[in-house]
Amino acid sequence: MNSFEKISALVNSAIQQTKWQKEPGGLYDPIAYTMGQGGKRIRPALTLMACNLFSENIELALKPAIGIEVFHNFTLLHDDIMDKATIRRGKPTVHVKWDENTAILSGDVMQIIAYEQLLETPSQHLKKVLDLFTKTAAEICEGQQYDMEFEQRDDVLPEEYLEMIRLKTAVLLGCSLKTGAIIGGASEEDAQHLYDFGINIGLAFQLKDDLLDVYGNTEIFGKQVGGDILCNKKTYLLIHAQKAAQEDIKTKLHYWLNEPTPDPGKKIREVTGIYNRLGVRKICEDAMSSYYEKAIAFLEKVSVPTNKKQELRKLAEKLMFRND
Amino acid sequence: MNSFEKISALVNSAIQQTKWQKEPGGLYDPIAYTMGQGGKRIRPALTLMACNLFSENIELALKPAIGIEVFHNFTLLHDDIMDKATIRRGKPTVHVKWDENTAILSGDVMQIIAYEQLLETPSQHLKKVLDLFTKTAAEICEGQQYDMEFEQRDDVLPEEYLEMIRLKTAVLLGCSLKTGAIIGGASEEDAQHLYDFGINIGLAFQLKDDLLDVYGNTEIFGKQVGGDILCNKKTYLLIHAQKAAQEDIKTKLHYWLNEPTPDPGKKIREVTGIYNRLGVRKICEDAMSSYYEKAIAFLEKVSVPTNKKQELRKLAEKLMFRND
Repeated sequence: MNSFEKISALVNSAIQQTKWQKEPGGLYDPIAYTMGQGGKRIRPALTLMACNLFSENIELALKPAIGIEVFHNFTLLHDDIMDKATIRRGKPTVHVKWDENTAILSGDVMQIIAYEQLLETPSQHLKKVLDLFTKTAAEICEGQQYDMEFEQRDDVLPEEYLEMIRLKTAVLLGCSLKTGAIIGGASEEDAQHLYDFGINIGLAFQLKDDLLDVYGNTEIFGKQVGGDILCNKKTYLLIHAQKAAQEDIKTKLHYWLNEPTPDPGKKIREVTGIYNRLGVRKICEDAMSSYYEKAIAFLEKVSVPTNKKQELRKLAEKLMFRND
Repeated sequence: MNSFEKISALVNSAIQQTKWQKEPGGLYDPIAYTMGQGGKRIRPALTLMACNLFSENIELALKPAIGIEVFHNFTLLHDDIMDKATIRRGKPTVHVKWDENTAILSGDVMQIIAYEQLLETPSQHLKKVLDLFTKTAAEICEGQQYDMEFEQRDDVLPEEYLEMIRLKTAVLLGCSLKTGAIIGGASEEDAQHLYDFGINIGLAFQLKDDLLDVYGNTEIFGKQVGGDILCNKKTYLLIHAQKAAQEDIKTKLHYWLNEPTPDPGKKIREVTGIYNRLGVRKICEDAMSSYYEKAIAFLEKVSVPTNKKQELRKLAEKLMFRND
């Protein structure tokens, strides 16, 4: 069983060796820029690690894994236009560095390149892998749509939020794992257990993200604590706070959500104070732990020796107990 | 051999029966709106007609044909954002009727739906059909990129323009035909002849479009003659005029291209006058005829009885000798 570090290195080297830059440069330069910016490469690593549970020949899953990473980067690129985000991984977003038309069209072609890479799936698994990927890709767009709609609403229910993050974040982790499992020759059941492992890790991962924004370590470079609070982002914390707040706390929360020019430090402190008083941190942590445990239970069901699954388990822990 | 009319009716009925509308409506309503707006459905018709040359079982090519039509409509949707077009087929464009974010995301999911439909290709042809489609889809984005870049340049060469319209328009016609041929069981050679027929028809078709804008029938509803001239669109006529113009004609053309608030009627008359004096109409008509003849020659090479090919020939004629 290859370690996450070894598999990450393999993924990074394959991404570096891929020829992203082609003619016309106006179309392909932003893709090379996007793919060259690193990131944790968790999704392709999951694909290769899942494949590795059932096969030593993980090279067979390498191009499909990169296809999934290209698709993930495409979603970030288009989401950044829609969210008017100016910085991604410490660098200007594509629509800022180039322009919006370039970002739209380069993103479009990234979706096509994702399929191009996935088309390198060994032929006996091609249809199954592409069906899964296509279903997942549509779900991710649905998740982004719900996310945007929720920003306009004040009555989002916790279960609606969880369904949104399942679509926007979790299904691609499930898809990454299941794709690797299929290519590695897993049984239908094992492939599905890995998918469910991914879904639950994804949900826990996003709740961790919501928590880190408020309770994360301010020392970590590139991460502004309280960013979600400042922009009124509908996180699991805020949704629960809006649901639980009564009387004066409700008034106070409403004030901070609607104050057009708040003092940023004060807004973060006050809203965090409301979260603390309402106990929503614990609600979020409990939900996160529960998904994490479910994830581990699905991993345990996969019918390969426990020692083979250690690397995936370690990676799940690492994602869950990170500080940035 | 089914007639174009019969095949078009089959395509339209299949499009009507497809469930475009799903949850969330904010994502899928614009797709239903776009797919419900008609259009000539030339691409899916070409797929079915090409299939029909080799097989009676054209149903096998129906979903892939619709996938190609969905992709075509996706490109129009995203192009309309980039070109800031407000009207398409007499109705508000998606980014006007909804907003830009909706148009971006609905377009993204249309690309995925295109693949979803193409994944219904019979398994023995799946890889070949998807490889061709994926290559074509990337080329279309490249064509759109060149088109946008050319709008910023004054020195576009006729051969650059022809390569741009090959990518932006012609390859999808070639792909439509070749996809049908592959599914129908054509030989490699016949499939390629049909592809080349499509490329040349596509080039001729676009040159016809350029001509119609200037020399078309003003009586036809929905088509404003001179629209390309008014917005300085780099057509084959303008590119040749810029290349050929000398001295006072050059000065005059430069004036009309740079006058910020021209009288529209006057600008159209004056630029058309320049085209006439420089003989660029004939250059464009000659190029169009030459591509049309090449197209017919490729169709003749396809090894099926001539009477079977009559419908495709009639359709090519119809596209070439149309007045709108």
